[in-house]
Amino acid sequence: MGTFQIDTPFLETIKSLIEQGEDTPLKRKLKSIHYADIAEIIEHLSIDEATYIIKLLKSETTADALAEVDPDTRERILENLSAKEIAKEVAELDSDDATDLILELPEARQEKVMSQIQDDEHVKDIRELLKYDENTAGGLMAKELVKVEENLSVLKCLNEMRAQAEHVTRVHSIYVVDQSNTLKGRLSLKDLITANSRDKVKDIYIPNVDFVTVDQNNEEVAKIMSKYDLEAIPVVNKKKELVGRITIDDIVDVIKEEAEKDYQLAAGISNDVEADDTIYELVKARLPWLFLGLLGGLGSVFILQDFESVMEQPRLRNLFFYTPLIAAMAGNVGVQSSAIIVQGLANDTVKGSPLNRLIKEIGLSLINGFALALVIIIFGLIINQELLVSLTIAGSMMLVIVVAALIGTFVPIILDKRGIDPAIATGPFITTANDIFGIFLFFYIAKLILIL
Amino acid sequence: MGTFQIDTPFLETIKSLIEQGEDTPLKRKLKSIHYADIAEIIEHLSIDEATYIIKLLKSETTADALAEVDPDTRERILENLSAKEIAKEVAELDSDDATDLILELPEARQEKVMSQIQDDEHVKDIRELLKYDENTAGGLMAKELVKVEENLSVLKCLNEMRAQAEHVTRVHSIYVVDQSNTLKGRLSLKDLITANSRDKVKDIYIPNVDFVTVDQNNEEVAKIMSKYDLEAIPVVNKKKELVGRITIDDIVDVIKEEAEKDYQLAAGISNDVEADDTIYELVKARLPWLFLGLLGGLGSVFILQDFESVMEQPRLRNLFFYTPLIAAMAGNVGVQSSAIIVQGLANDTVKGSPLNRLIKEIGLSLINGFALALVIIIFGLIINQELLVSLTIAGSMMLVIVVAALIGTFVPIILDKRGIDPAIATGPFITTANDIFGIFLFFYIAKLILIL
Repeated sequence: MGTFQIDTPFLETIKSLIEQGEDTPLKRKLKSIHYADIAEIIEHLSIDEATYIIKLLKSETTADALAEVDPDTRERILENLSAKEIAKEVAELDSDDATDLILELPEARQEKVMSQIQDDEHVKDIRELLKYDENTAGGLMAKELVKVEENLSVLKCLNEMRAQAEHVTRVHSIYVVDQSNTLKGRLSLKDLITANSRDKVKDIYIPNVDFVTVDQNNEEVAKIMSKYDLEAIPVVNKKKELVGRITIDDIVDVIKEEAEKDYQLAAGISNDVEADDTIYELVKARLPWLFLGLLGGLGSVFILQDFESVMEQPRLRNLFFYTPLIAAMAGNVGVQSSAIIVQGLANDTVKGSPLNRLIKEIGLSLINGFALALVIIIFGLIINQELLVSLTIAGSMMLVIVVAALIGTFVPIILDKRGIDPAIATGPFITTANDIFGIFLFFYIAKLILIL
Repeated sequence: MGTFQIDTPFLETIKSLIEQGEDTPLKRKLKSIHYADIAEIIEHLSIDEATYIIKLLKSETTADALAEVDPDTRERILENLSAKEIAKEVAELDSDDATDLILELPEARQEKVMSQIQDDEHVKDIRELLKYDENTAGGLMAKELVKVEENLSVLKCLNEMRAQAEHVTRVHSIYVVDQSNTLKGRLSLKDLITANSRDKVKDIYIPNVDFVTVDQNNEEVAKIMSKYDLEAIPVVNKKKELVGRITIDDIVDVIKEEAEKDYQLAAGISNDVEADDTIYELVKARLPWLFLGLLGGLGSVFILQDFESVMEQPRLRNLFFYTPLIAAMAGNVGVQSSAIIVQGLANDTVKGSPLNRLIKEIGLSLINGFALALVIIIFGLIINQELLVSLTIAGSMMLVIVVAALIGTFVPIILDKRGIDPAIATGPFITTANDIFGIFLFFYIAKLILIL
């Protein structure tokens, strides 16, 4: 591994060098460490220590490190820096990261920082990017790209490219535009090198190029880039003018965030939080779903009260002992069904008619339900439970499982059809709904069979 | 959007052209469609129709399309093809995709197919890749890359590169090796172009290059590439010889699969299944976790039986009505805590001492628990429940919530320390454990307070 390992002794050294203000050995220690590692080191320091390092090192590295650290840490470091110091960092970043950083500042500071950036072109790019919604291609793209006009000769094109490439970290593709900046296609480096130097760009470019528009959703862009294995995609506005470019590293982040969001929704966490966030943020993210669960629980109190008379008959009391089991089965089955559907919808692998899906879910649940029912009956024999009671419990559990599977399958499908993110219908939402339905169904059927 | 939309009329046309054997119009329809779209079309066809298309089109496109489709579909199409036909597809694929395809064949067919591939070099590459574990860098890498020997002159180097680049879809980086193929560094295209043609490679290469070793885990490789924003990384063996290269598109797949696996585990699905898999596969993936839930449920039957005497006292019967609520809260809190920790462990954001984490979780649960307890007390007043009973329920629920949060937090941490994937401790596992603990604690404490 060519990469750097951060360990406790190393961190201790850094901390003590900061404390003693030993700038020269500190710089030497941190020299030639990758910005992603600097970011990781910063995460292990206090905010004051982190600020010290940001001010000490060259902003070439620290700017990228700042762009990498956790948003909370970044926000608190930025509070420690002057507008001029922030401007120095922003100036080093590509336009997309620069815009993200500006967006995290309080509005009053944004203008102050912008006015301190020397490069007018950079400020213009940032101002343009600030206009787009964060969750669209416009919010994701950078202005840095290499483009050539179709009427250029290959020779001029090469010079032009060299000049532009100075400002672009990774070239990926050379885009071809017409005089009014409309995207026409792309140039292959291979074709360019083998072309005659007096050929024009328009003679050799590839007109077939994938692109997205500024207002397309982040997730759509991610789907397109990962489907077609693209490492960069040009972004156009409504007039098909080339306005930016999205690279695969940003898409990797989108895919990760998307997966984390779905996972957190399934676990009943409503905001994007991390283990190291403040208690206040964690409560805010967790309490709403717990309230929902509580309301469901109170709902089942009502339902169970209605069946209080069952308690009077010792042979039927066992039904009450099975409530946690029924609730657990209804919840687990519902979460399984909804997770499969939500992932299927996300990956476009849900095919076939609703009727087919209905038949499949019922078949599946009957098989699972039957296997589980057998266990209940055997368990009943072991604990000497009246056979009719066991059969009733087993049978109504099977029905509960079928209903839970149908709710878990069709609620996300219906939400998706209505344009609502189906991921909210996983986890506590489906568990709570299924708990209530399950317990009600179970007692209702059991009472019907056993008392009649 | 430059991309292609697959709709029902288009599919109907394709299907009817296949049925009528109208090869020429069919070829025209499918010409110049991207392989990823061909893959999507194939997913919408029957296996026989899909096979027809694979045989009809040039294997340049169909090979890549085959590599993209769902593994189940691929397996069934491959069953329809002769060893020679499969060899033709494999010959078109990069060594990594070729190896994956070979691996999916029954062992007896693997050799038959390999013997039909004309290109000996390709076969040698595949044989080498077959040796590595699927979940390691070796299993992920391709043999196709561009490398130059450090003693070459820049001029020779350019020629060498051009020749090699013929076989490499995307160049990304030019790696520099010594005479014994040991990885030394990489060449920047910029430096290469601006160098004097009589300079040697060793005068201009960048010695600082990230790499991974063949036996490093997939997920580690993904972490490194996404941390350092790499689009390709060279792979070396134990002797530091350059043996392959991993590109970002494969890493995007690893990240997606990893996220899906964790999500499925949290939802209680043990194998990687999709909504459109067979009922048998779905049962196999879902039933084991349901059994676990069932065992937990039967455990609570035992616990509740022990508290049967509570039913004799009408004022305490209400406790039984609250069992689903307690189970739901214990389960939900546990899943939240475990999800946050599991994600934190995956992203390396879990810092601070265990003691700090303990204090934080207790604080957090007390706040959440207190808010929820208030609701219980108000609810009790509304339904005219004895105040002492409400207070007891609310208080023991708070304790249940604290314990559930601690189980949810520390079980994954302990698993992770022992080298077990902490993701298995989310979903049904933690829910079931917490159901049982929660119900026991609740009844035990409630009985203690109310009967003493």
